Amino acid sequence: MGQLFTPQILASRQIMNIRLFFVLLLGTLPLTTLLSDEGMWTFNAPPREVLKQRHQFEIADSWLEKARLASVRFNNGGSGSFVSPEGLILTNHHIGADALQKLSLSGRNLIRDGFLARSRAEELPCPDLELNVLMSIEDVTEKVRSSLAPGLSPAEAAAARRAAMAKIESDSLQASKLRSDVVTLYQGGAYHLYRYKKFTDVRLVMAPESGIASFGGDNDNFEFPRYCLDFCFFRAYENGQPVKPPSYFKLAATAPAEGDLVFVTGHPGTTNRLETLAKLIHRRDHFHPYTLARLRAMEAALERFSFALPENSTLAATDLHRVANARKAFTGQYNGLLNPAILRVKEQQEEGLKKAAQGNETALAAWRAIAIAQAKLGSFEKLHLLIERGDAFFSELFTIARTIVRLTEELPKPSGKRLREYRDSNLESLKFQLFSPAPIHPALEIAKLEASLAFLAEQLGGDNNITKIALGGETPPVRARDLVHQSKLADPAERKRLVEGGAQAIHASTDSMIRLARDIDEQARALRKRYEEEVEEPERQAYDAIAKVRFQLQGDKVAPDATFTLRLAFGLVKGYRVDDADLPFQTTFNGLYERHKKMQGKPPFELPQRWLEKKEKLKGNCPMVFVSTADTIGGNSGSPVINRHGELVGLNFDRNRHGLVRNFVYTEEQARHISVHAHGILEALETAYNAQTLAREFAGR
Amino acid sequence: MGQLFTPQILASRQIMNIRLFFVLLLGTLPLTTLLSDEGMWTFNAPPREVLKQRHQFEIADSWLEKARLASVRFNNGGSGSFVSPEGLILTNHHIGADALQKLSLSGRNLIRDGFLARSRAEELPCPDLELNVLMSIEDVTEKVRSSLAPGLSPAEAAAARRAAMAKIESDSLQASKLRSDVVTLYQGGAYHLYRYKKFTDVRLVMAPESGIASFGGDNDNFEFPRYCLDFCFFRAYENGQPVKPPSYFKLAATAPAEGDLVFVTGHPGTTNRLETLAKLIHRRDHFHPYTLARLRAMEAALERFSFALPENSTLAATDLHRVANARKAFTGQYNGLLNPAILRVKEQQEEGLKKAAQGNETALAAWRAIAIAQAKLGSFEKLHLLIERGDAFFSELFTIARTIVRLTEELPKPSGKRLREYRDSNLESLKFQLFSPAPIHPALEIAKLEASLAFLAEQLGGDNNITKIALGGETPPVRARDLVHQSKLADPAERKRLVEGGAQAIHASTDSMIRLARDIDEQARALRKRYEEEVEEPERQAYDAIAKVRFQLQGDKVAPDATFTLRLAFGLVKGYRVDDADLPFQTTFNGLYERHKKMQGKPPFELPQRWLEKKEKLKGNCPMVFVSTADTIGGNSGSPVINRHGELVGLNFDRNRHGLVRNFVYTEEQARHISVHAHGILEALETAYNAQTLAREFAGR
Repeated sequence: MGQLFTPQILASRQIMNIRLFFVLLLGTLPLTTLLSDEGMWTFNAPPREVLKQRHQFEIADSWLEKARLASVRFNNGGSGSFVSPEGLILTNHHIGADALQKLSLSGRNLIRDGFLARSRAEELPCPDLELNVLMSIEDVTEKVRSSLAPGLSPAEAAAARRAAMAKIESDSLQASKLRSDVVTLYQGGAYHLYRYKKFTDVRLVMAPESGIASFGGDNDNFEFPRYCLDFCFFRAYENGQPVKPPSYFKLAATAPAEGDLVFVTGHPGTTNRLETLAKLIHRRDHFHPYTLARLRAMEAALERFSFALPENSTLAATDLHRVANARKAFTGQYNGLLNPAILRVKEQQEEGLKKAAQGNETALAAWRAIAIAQAKLGSFEKLHLLIERGDAFFSELFTIARTIVRLTEELPKPSGKRLREYRDSNLESLKFQLFSPAPIHPALEIAKLEASLAFLAEQLGGDNNITKIALGGETPPVRARDLVHQSKLADPAERKRLVEGGAQAIHASTDSMIRLARDIDEQARALRKRYEEEVEEPERQAYDAIAKVRFQLQGDKVAPDATFTLRLAFGLVKGYRVDDADLPFQTTFNGLYERHKKMQGKPPFELPQRWLEKKEKLKGNCPMVFVSTADTIGGNSGSPVINRHGELVGLNFDRNRHGLVRNFVYTEEQARHISVHAHGILEALETAYNAQTLAREFAGR
Repeated sequence: MGQLFTPQILASRQIMNIRLFFVLLLGTLPLTTLLSDEGMWTFNAPPREVLKQRHQFEIADSWLEKARLASVRFNNGGSGSFVSPEGLILTNHHIGADALQKLSLSGRNLIRDGFLARSRAEELPCPDLELNVLMSIEDVTEKVRSSLAPGLSPAEAAAARRAAMAKIESDSLQASKLRSDVVTLYQGGAYHLYRYKKFTDVRLVMAPESGIASFGGDNDNFEFPRYCLDFCFFRAYENGQPVKPPSYFKLAATAPAEGDLVFVTGHPGTTNRLETLAKLIHRRDHFHPYTLARLRAMEAALERFSFALPENSTLAATDLHRVANARKAFTGQYNGLLNPAILRVKEQQEEGLKKAAQGNETALAAWRAIAIAQAKLGSFEKLHLLIERGDAFFSELFTIARTIVRLTEELPKPSGKRLREYRDSNLESLKFQLFSPAPIHPALEIAKLEASLAFLAEQLGGDNNITKIALGGETPPVRARDLVHQSKLADPAERKRLVEGGAQAIHASTDSMIRLARDIDEQARALRKRYEEEVEEPERQAYDAIAKVRFQLQGDKVAPDATFTLRLAFGLVKGYRVDDADLPFQTTFNGLYERHKKMQGKPPFELPQRWLEKKEKLKGNCPMVFVSTADTIGGNSGSPVINRHGELVGLNFDRNRHGLVRNFVYTEEQARHISVHAHGILEALETAYNAQTLAREFAGR
């Protein structure tokens, strides 16, 4: 059945009528999309069968191990990979931007102007960048499950589960000395222990100018054809020496051709494909509208701040990019949720599962339990997001204050009884962030805080008790200024002093941010507790029951939803058709200059001076960016794209707008992920940047 | 008492502590702010006493009449004035921008590049600009009141009042041949008949480049010091000849000095100073949060559209300016409503009135009635704004479609029974707009409609019946494209055909926009009815009762809230203090070039080429922009600023951010309105634009 719906057959239908396509394709979609390129697969359950049947590729264990050990997680939200035996790491410019901004001190503007270390000595140590390499995976589902005695209340079950997970992690950390995280898969259907080697001495090697790295800016984001060189290079060090990584990707000599099979190994953040219809409708009618309103409010504030002084645009660059990127992604997701054809597919998939669960009362009750959890969530979700997630306090200083307040309160408790992020096994990473010497910019803090405090008031009303505590009898602009000016937490030494002073120091503190964090903490904790007990725990138990039905029906043919852990995706390098136009699978430097001309070089289509000067020297037909059908999502930014031989052919940095519904359904007709071409990077290094040493290292010469 | 709180005495307090200032000033503010410069006064009740006592100015009836007849209302939302005996009209560039954009055809970009007619023949006729000059005011309060027999239900009262107003207007139109509007003052405490002479042949004479007209853009909007030449010139024609206006403002030879008394005659749009506390709290917790969310959503969509193609920024310029300006104004208002000190003042004022109303049960019930109306409004306000006000359909084509659908349905009814905007006396102006030949740009329409349809879904949810009708089973982007592409209403001939075809033509129409307007009209009308009967009419009756208390207590010492009708404001030209800095009362061309340098000439601080070239030729110390304490608000844009002798000294274009709370309370400590200096305009005409003929006409030489 599934084979009837190959892209080739559908192509002609879609040209006629994109909506008919959805009705035809999705209305009859089987529960398992056998022989599609769907899936962000865990490395301990790779899609051997479909790769063999559909792409005649037998995936070897050694291939998998090499790829896993060469893949790197950027803990600030992205992916990367080792690309030389000397610890050289390739990722996206927009993933490195946070470090670039923190390194932009005293008039130096690394985001705008780029950077190139001409020697190892010139490489710049990043203040708070932590990288992880996945060393092993262990299935601990039964260990976690067995911690839950029958008949526990949701509150008791949540506590027991948290304690069990913390113990597994602590034991693993002690035994292996590796960062150890229990990962919840299938929304609660499985628990795997991931062990990571950590790198915290990471140095900047090279970054192009933002003008070429994000050519086209927000306008071209999630679009194709595309002309970004969204890359930068770091190097991992240990004991002052470049790391010899356990594995790295060699640059492929041959560029991918149309139809070639490629793989993406990276850390997709979140997908919602296995969520129930009730959950998706909750997202459509509650979570997404709230989130879009919030993102627009923060984006507007950051844009205004950016324009207010010449130096501000760099200060706000990373925040603005993240918010704008999320706004565009959520808009695409929201359109997907408003698409009746997509909801119909989800409904049919759910009906299929329910049919398979006939007679299994536990499973059938699970769908009802999730629906009930959404109804409960609706009554306090905004509060939870504003107060406990911290949407009302868009500020680094506040985040620091809350972490200090809670750390001092949690530390005296046994690890398994703490709020999860304060468990023993996570403390080293948490303190690495908390004591970061990266500068905090008061003006930016004020702008962000003013906007988020106003958003809080808009959402809850002026007479709400939490609004009153947060505003302290002032208007948002005055309160934001006071909070920032009356806090000393920009100084890491002050943070250490408070943490070392413990609960007593917190109690005695008159620091404005500490006081605010303290004043709302009781309410924040209560909201978290409510969320965990009324939503998270019932959902986990329900999804566990549904996952069992799914496994029985489909075996391991469905990958778990994304969890910002290492996954393997695969697909074909392939152009696609939009309206009446065939889009090629790749762009070239010639295309870059044509687009620059068409857009009259106005921002965000300005090219850096270097790129105007080097136009004639660059190979015009050198490939710059290409697309494939592999299944990626936010978090995959910076992921290596490799060929059958495990060689590097590209650097994933985006997906197209047709791919924005991939949170809910995978389609491969028009949806594509977008990668910088490895040969485009090499050409830029050699010709535009005259970075011959780096180019040789990258090319393995 | 009031005299104690003069600005001079308060200044020192405010420097110490702006919040203490509010507590001190506002906490003890008397009900009448006697001897302040507060007030947007109607021309039939000018503030003779305060002008005499505070400013030693005896206002003559002839002075008032000359000023009234030289003042012009721009019906697209602004003000202006006659400035020569040949019908030359001065207004703001941002008020003329709508016409500039509609005249920007076939590659000509009048917004960006400016325009100068070197002769009368070169002056460009605007497609749909209507100007009004106020010829007379008549108090018709008793006529309107007497139409309401005792014991009518709110629905009956609303209908009777509407019919009475329509009849007064029709009778006046027939008798005077002048546009005749009954204006509701004091939220229902008085009704005055305003008769206007209309001008519909209006031609563009001169506009500077947007780069100098709105130098600093959204960043500097509502800020001071300021460096905008926000002016442009039109000319009114009748029978193909320039109009000889009944009055005009001569250019003052002497520039205003610090401390000088000035007047502003213009059309302030809306203030809320006489609203009850319950109404203001409703605004704070419902209307303003909704409005801010909507404005941000529309602004984000317009900005994205602006960047997508080089030509788009001009297409979206007027919409974007209006939305961004409103977003900034509403943000300031919202901060005012979140300020406990301001609410405390309003509460005390209300308590004072209630005390004066002791024993007057009708009046005391009025405050309760307004509170009840807010509670009712809360339950359907979003629906009303989205569907009936049309927030969900941010589209010119939709507005046209709805007007046609309703016009054909209303016309057969007697004038007094129609929806108010379709009354006989308004039909000429309505059709002038409806059949405008101004171009409609499909791409911009799609962008606006997509954003507003998505906003509708976000507000009401995906399963809401109106969302479903509006989206027609599609996603917002697809639906917006279909609606725009499947409508022929961009063609004025098609609009005429439908209007002439009447209800039958509408019924038979397959035009996408007509169908949408038709499909939601029953619900939209029901919401309007509900609003009129449950909110508007009870409020009018209640405010009528409260106004009587106010008049008894304060006589005519309180001006009615703004209603986009001609008002007189006055104040002193005066600098002010912010934090530790004394801001001068005016800026110069030298200051312009300094700010340009400081902001590195980046947008929105780019200067047009002409202004870079003419730097040395311009008088650097020529005043450019100045501020005064006069009481203005949105709608005053383009208002003439005149001196004691009725001579033109400036052109109001903005107020500062301290003035944003003026919707609710007038303060004159830091709040200022901002004007282009008349001498700055003259210097620009002579030196930058070499427009000697126009300069001579403007200077009266």
